[in-house]
Amino acid sequence: MRSLTEHRDLILADLAPLPARPVRVTESLGLVLAADVMARVDLPGFDNSAMDGYAVRAADLAGASATSPVALPVDADIAAGDTTRHSLAPGHAMRIMTGAPLPDGADAIVPVEESDGGTGEAMLTLAAEVGRHVRSRGEDVRAGSVVLRAGQRIGPGHLALAAAANVDQVMAHPRPRVAIFSTGDELRPVGSELSFGQIVDSNGVMLAALVRAADAELVSLGHLDDDVDAVRALVHPVPGDPDLLLTTGGVSMGAYDTVKEVLSRGGVEFVKVAMRPGMPQGAGRVGPDRTPILTLPGNPVSSLVSFHVFVLPALRRLAGLDPWAVGSFEAAAAVGWPSIGGRVDCTRVVVGTDGLRPSGGQGSHQLGAMAEATALALVPAEVDRVVAGRVLTCLPLLGTTRG
Amino acid sequence: MRSLTEHRDLILADLAPLPARPVRVTESLGLVLAADVMARVDLPGFDNSAMDGYAVRAADLAGASATSPVALPVDADIAAGDTTRHSLAPGHAMRIMTGAPLPDGADAIVPVEESDGGTGEAMLTLAAEVGRHVRSRGEDVRAGSVVLRAGQRIGPGHLALAAAANVDQVMAHPRPRVAIFSTGDELRPVGSELSFGQIVDSNGVMLAALVRAADAELVSLGHLDDDVDAVRALVHPVPGDPDLLLTTGGVSMGAYDTVKEVLSRGGVEFVKVAMRPGMPQGAGRVGPDRTPILTLPGNPVSSLVSFHVFVLPALRRLAGLDPWAVGSFEAAAAVGWPSIGGRVDCTRVVVGTDGLRPSGGQGSHQLGAMAEATALALVPAEVDRVVAGRVLTCLPLLGTTRG
Repeated sequence: MRSLTEHRDLILADLAPLPARPVRVTESLGLVLAADVMARVDLPGFDNSAMDGYAVRAADLAGASATSPVALPVDADIAAGDTTRHSLAPGHAMRIMTGAPLPDGADAIVPVEESDGGTGEAMLTLAAEVGRHVRSRGEDVRAGSVVLRAGQRIGPGHLALAAAANVDQVMAHPRPRVAIFSTGDELRPVGSELSFGQIVDSNGVMLAALVRAADAELVSLGHLDDDVDAVRALVHPVPGDPDLLLTTGGVSMGAYDTVKEVLSRGGVEFVKVAMRPGMPQGAGRVGPDRTPILTLPGNPVSSLVSFHVFVLPALRRLAGLDPWAVGSFEAAAAVGWPSIGGRVDCTRVVVGTDGLRPSGGQGSHQLGAMAEATALALVPAEVDRVVAGRVLTCLPLLGTTRG
Repeated sequence: MRSLTEHRDLILADLAPLPARPVRVTESLGLVLAADVMARVDLPGFDNSAMDGYAVRAADLAGASATSPVALPVDADIAAGDTTRHSLAPGHAMRIMTGAPLPDGADAIVPVEESDGGTGEAMLTLAAEVGRHVRSRGEDVRAGSVVLRAGQRIGPGHLALAAAANVDQVMAHPRPRVAIFSTGDELRPVGSELSFGQIVDSNGVMLAALVRAADAELVSLGHLDDDVDAVRALVHPVPGDPDLLLTTGGVSMGAYDTVKEVLSRGGVEFVKVAMRPGMPQGAGRVGPDRTPILTLPGNPVSSLVSFHVFVLPALRRLAGLDPWAVGSFEAAAAVGWPSIGGRVDCTRVVVGTDGLRPSGGQGSHQLGAMAEATALALVPAEVDRVVAGRVLTCLPLLGTTRG
């Protein structure tokens, strides 16, 4: 059997960050830059006032104080957004608002709190220093300078900086586009009347939510019967032209495991991976566009586990992110529990203040127990019993971490 | 001046979780349930096989082993999704796939690996125990039982469980719907040609991205000139009928601070909050629907800080989440830095392995320095100098935490 890490590494080795393309800066939060970003304007774009108050020549206010105010005639009001270039005569002042352009000749701002607020003439009570409350053109960022670097993941501050620097598009690795198809004649959409032998297709619903939570884009979501022609048709070409195709079901030892039957002849390798749950896995490329595909087992618990250990790293690789930096953490077992041994046991656990506890029955069909889990504890293959206190590497379940 | 926590608490006291409404389970990830969820079907829905193999009566295989196999005639193939109720005669077997319904009379499964795989007759090499590899109807969840509780935040496992239990709608607090309007005559959309005195409206772009990153829904995004009529018109009624209206700018001491001028007469309280940046704040309700509004200052850095300390908790309250559980953490300063004193200094910091460092110049117009920050360190008002080693409470910046 192939080890979990070996299978994951083979999946990742076949994937590269998606080709960079121009992305509107408004849509760029969380993406990884593929090229440096250069400011198109100075920041600030012009000398401007940091306060609401009066633009003055500092020399005109020598010795001014609360007890000895200086009166200056007020020649103009300058609002933020005023596109006139004003010019301040010696011995005069102009009212000015925060962010408004400094008039030529002015070299300091007296805050309105240090005045009588006058509009025709103002009594100013502060001896302003040159440059006081003035933001100089380009003091924060120079036009043409690199403000963001290729490889950076765009956070909210980066986004605000790029926008302020008048950059409306950046070159970035786009969000991966994902198609999901569940297979199995027994599956019915949620809310259907179920006949004997039928079950709800919960995998499609769950994976769709996880794909969106991973900041990827869902381009198609569907269901296939266990039918050779249906599986063949799926990949010629893959609907929605996704960057990654996910299937669930049809990959085991059964006589109706059609996904395996059809795709093993067409570019997908099906293997047993030394893990529980989720042993039967497939990975490869299909269709005329050589679309990357991961075929996940059909059990809902196996599907959830496979998403976190294989699909999420694959999506991160495609997005240009570190594929394995998914917030894994170490924590100690609060209680002991049996493990399968010989395979990595992906135990669904609740992370409490005292450590890790299995969230309940660990059968791959046991959704009731799975529901409460907030993480997967990866019990190494050489361990056949977790003892209380043992430290395990854990993966947080996507969508459970924000409290 | 009002303290930061006092202002936040007053905002939260005026808000309640949005009225619960039915939400498609497919759209429910991350929402908070407002009512218990009851299973509509048993899980499993019928006795079924946990393996690909043969359905048998255990009594027929007493003493079977690899060296002493037992041959049984194979009467049928039962696939997953087979809606026929099969009946197994004594001394016979049926091929059965994982998840397929157990035939009446069968009480155990022999995995295909313990057989010759025969289709007309099978040689079985295992003395099966009663119940082996059989999943019994309702063993995981009983129809009618409560599977999810009111107040739970729906994680991926919850979602899969609800779907599997054939629940297609849940009662939940919906995602808050948010409208954002920037004010200021000087603002131009990103990518515009800028005249002297004009700047890019980066706040709208940044806040829109943050609102979406907070899992809220953006229903309108616009710009208003500093015009009394425009501000009056904005709230009669508020476009998009949002659950929360955000404005930026126009709230300070200036002569053109129209938001303050208009809305202080109509249900919004404008206050100075003892924080830096972000001192001028407003909160209240406006328009015919008494829409909650937060008026943020226009400086981009103040806007970013105000989002994290006021808007994000408000959005969480509306969504039914613990408003203040936003992943705050404690960390020690790696270096010393001056603080303003008398106000909470929301220092933009980079969180490194050795602790916190200011991300650069802390002026409220300094976007270049803000861009690199990954958290806000909240320096208490009574501190006028952070010394290296001092432990500070920090808020992670939304969108920077996933590596």
